[in-house]
Amino acid sequence: MSSKLSSNLFSKPAIKLSRLAELLEVELEGDGECEIEGLGTLADAVPGQLSFLSNPAYAGQLAATRASAVVIEEKFRDACPANKLISSRPYASFARATEIFHAPEKPSSCIHPSAVIDPSAQVGESVSVGPGSVIEAGASIGEDSVIGPGCIVGAACELGESCHLRRAVILYPGVRLGRNVQIDANSVIGADGFGYAFDGEKSLKIHHGGSVRIGDDVEIGAGTTIDRGALDDTVIGRGVKIDNQVQIGHNCVIGDHTIICGCTAIAGSVVIGEYCIMGGASGAVGHISIADRVEVSAMSLVSRSITEPGRYSSGTGHMKTSRWKRAITRFQELDEMANRLKGLEKLVKKD
Amino acid sequence: MSSKLSSNLFSKPAIKLSRLAELLEVELEGDGECEIEGLGTLADAVPGQLSFLSNPAYAGQLAATRASAVVIEEKFRDACPANKLISSRPYASFARATEIFHAPEKPSSCIHPSAVIDPSAQVGESVSVGPGSVIEAGASIGEDSVIGPGCIVGAACELGESCHLRRAVILYPGVRLGRNVQIDANSVIGADGFGYAFDGEKSLKIHHGGSVRIGDDVEIGAGTTIDRGALDDTVIGRGVKIDNQVQIGHNCVIGDHTIICGCTAIAGSVVIGEYCIMGGASGAVGHISIADRVEVSAMSLVSRSITEPGRYSSGTGHMKTSRWKRAITRFQELDEMANRLKGLEKLVKKD
Amino acid sequence: MSSKLSSNLFSKPAIKLSRLAELLEVELEGDGECEIEGLGTLADAVPGQLSFLSNPAYAGQLAATRASAVVIEEKFRDACPANKLISSRPYASFARATEIFHAPEKPSSCIHPSAVIDPSAQVGESVSVGPGSVIEAGASIGEDSVIGPGCIVGAACELGESCHLRRAVILYPGVRLGRNVQIDANSVIGADGFGYAFDGEKSLKIHHGGSVRIGDDVEIGAGTTIDRGALDDTVIGRGVKIDNQVQIGHNCVIGDHTIICGCTAIAGSVVIGEYCIMGGASGAVGHISIADRVEVSAMSLVSRSITEPGRYSSGTGHMKTSRWKRAITRFQELDEMANRLKGLEKLVKKD
Repeated sequence: MSSKLSSNLFSKPAIKLSRLAELLEVELEGDGECEIEGLGTLADAVPGQLSFLSNPAYAGQLAATRASAVVIEEKFRDACPANKLISSRPYASFARATEIFHAPEKPSSCIHPSAVIDPSAQVGESVSVGPGSVIEAGASIGEDSVIGPGCIVGAACELGESCHLRRAVILYPGVRLGRNVQIDANSVIGADGFGYAFDGEKSLKIHHGGSVRIGDDVEIGAGTTIDRGALDDTVIGRGVKIDNQVQIGHNCVIGDHTIICGCTAIAGSVVIGEYCIMGGASGAVGHISIADRVEVSAMSLVSRSITEPGRYSSGTGHMKTSRWKRAITRFQELDEMANRLKGLEKLVKKD
Repeated sequence: MSSKLSSNLFSKPAIKLSRLAELLEVELEGDGECEIEGLGTLADAVPGQLSFLSNPAYAGQLAATRASAVVIEEKFRDACPANKLISSRPYASFARATEIFHAPEKPSSCIHPSAVIDPSAQVGESVSVGPGSVIEAGASIGEDSVIGPGCIVGAACELGESCHLRRAVILYPGVRLGRNVQIDANSVIGADGFGYAFDGEKSLKIHHGGSVRIGDDVEIGAGTTIDRGALDDTVIGRGVKIDNQVQIGHNCVIGDHTIICGCTAIAGSVVIGEYCIMGGASGAVGHISIADRVEVSAMSLVSRSITEPGRYSSGTGHMKTSRWKRAITRFQELDEMANRLKGLEKLVKKD
Repeated sequence: MSSKLSSNLFSKPAIKLSRLAELLEVELEGDGECEIEGLGTLADAVPGQLSFLSNPAYAGQLAATRASAVVIEEKFRDACPANKLISSRPYASFARATEIFHAPEKPSSCIHPSAVIDPSAQVGESVSVGPGSVIEAGASIGEDSVIGPGCIVGAACELGESCHLRRAVILYPGVRLGRNVQIDANSVIGADGFGYAFDGEKSLKIHHGGSVRIGDDVEIGAGTTIDRGALDDTVIGRGVKIDNQVQIGHNCVIGDHTIICGCTAIAGSVVIGEYCIMGGASGAVGHISIADRVEVSAMSLVSRSITEPGRYSSGTGHMKTSRWKRAITRFQELDEMANRLKGLEKLVKKD
């Protein structure tokens, strides 16, 4: 029906709506015998699919949706013609539904013959290791973990239970992951930080003796780099979510449940609080701290410590280049402009 | 002669200028028997090399060039002492010449014994698979495609004819490439998008059931990441060119022939039109759309939808840090300055 | 004692302080028999560790440090209760100490049986090649070099002595490294530059015939990309240090001993002088040049050539988003504001 490949790749057995309500721990209103085969947006769902309404801006799409059931808040109950799953947090309930319908199946536990595993490594019985992966001396991998194809787990690394290195993840020696840590392709954890001492003529490398410690339930995207500490460890707190192509410098400490969006660059020795959100391509200069529950907007640079929760931004907003060129000329004269304004005020007031 | 290694690496047989004119479909003026062995800039070319003039700023270099032949526009015919290939688009003609002289040779069709190919994968007879590459279950690779060393082609991926994954390219399951798609080292296509639902305490992962579809003739640089869609697919249009270290979020739709320069960060659900140019290290926030033929300058952030073609910028331009520090202090007072200016105007006009 | 894994991973034999003073070429004051087992900060060091004081801001920590010895400048001699190593550049001396205590041991010279080495490649007797690495035809690897696991060394690459490709480094064909070049995981050197000629309808690829040449003692972080030149080579000077996720475009020339911090984006054909510092996530537009000893601050864009040494910045500094929104509205009106200010000045002066 749908030309989307997704329908083939993620085909899971259909689930009765009543069973789904139990799994999602939400209230069912409607036909519990209805079979749900997959997920769709309000606008695009077809019969057999479950949808959701989280952002009230889309409430107008409820009336016409073809979804067989919709996860909604109580207050939209009457506006929804389909079967309903009533949730106080529809998006969170829908997230749980994506786990049922879209989570890739865990590969069966086996060590691919092309994997290279040092005899001194401790690899749990239930662990799966993909083709071409390398597990170096003294590393230990917790039960139910999956090491995908092309990964390198450095010497003396420690991975907790149920970790998943998806594809070509690289852990330098001595990196420690908690339980249920997920890392996507080509991320590099534990390379040396960028530290040099200038001797007057050339830069001398600071060899890094710290490591990286990553808490439980952390997820890290693709192509992200997290450097090891110089003397102490770099620390990523519990439940932190890190997107693709993020750079986290040596000796950073990222608080629990903080979210770091793609392409963010965090310099060395930055301490970020809990429940923060670093917007996409944002940045922080080194040796500063950011309080709990701070939200930094996209492509903004945090250039000094932030001590209070709240939202922070930098930059200018985009505009037509022709007007922008005049604006930036004036920006460069801004201090003079301010002084002229002050002078004028004195003159006028004197009058 | 030249110490450049390039001369060895790319040594191709010499071609008569008359034959080259045929291949490039341009008019020859001069000695068609002249043998061309390689390419060079007007300033640095040596005898035996072909050069080109595209930017009129370099027209002054024509007189002294040692190149044996030059691709030029009609209007520069008289200013050029060397043999001439007359083209209405000299740079496009020169691009075709680089294909003749610099394109790497296609490796002979063979499957390296260290490659791991699932028996259910469909790999065309003319396909080449490099050392250590992994082709997972149900993937299909079109004829004349080249899978370089160290690549991972996920389950159920579909590659059209003449695709080239150069080195260590990673395709997550279900990604679909059209014909003649070229991807450079360490790019990751189809990892899960960065989507979480906050349940009041922690972030719940949105497992992504969409995929990534990439059109014909797309080229993608090194270290780029393109995430799969949540429910629908992420779509890259035909002829799109994407540079290194670009991030494209889940559910983006990139129009045909758009160009995205290096280190650009595009958040989720952004729709970009056709024939756009996103400058280096530019960005776009999520859930916006950008019209056809929009050009965004380097390191500019598109923070709301753009509905008209044209050039757009953000930022301030660089300046001496000492002056800049005063300017940003004033920037932070800019609203007050504007109000003071308005007050002054009232006062003076009243006079 | 310490829960830090670092203490296990990097455990090296203890060294007498007198011997350490010799190795670091500094003056010893105190008990030369004291055994040093590792390194620590002034605040956190435990007995048996060496610390250092470089930034005078931390001088107050000297009195209470538990470190067994401290590297300090002459002028702090009296303030330090511990054994002393007197150095005119304490941080540089400490960097040398990190080499003694933290540098990973060179693996023994061996070719892992899973490595794929073309018979025409020249690999020195003392070279080590890790699991799954690929050395293509005609490549040459200098003595004492280490090719870590998962690397790909392209055809005709030339590596000098004592190079170290740490993990999964990718060199495209024809790349040349000097002596003692260190490259971290997933960096890609020598992919084609991002060059296209527009033929009026579509973009034609410029196949790149130049290469990348990297000088002695260069270090490159993880996930960095350096493109090959179009006709000439891209050149990285001697002693240059490049952090993670940096992008350097085709035909750039980076001067000796320049430092490029993480996530910096340098467009094509940029010439950067010697002893420059490009701050984190900074950028430079194409075809410009930057003088020697220029320092560009974090996330600043160099948008035209810089001809004089000094410090340069762009951007606005961060502020509360609510105030920032008013400031950027005014920024967009800045040219009008400047004109109104000028008008007002005329008016008032006329009075």
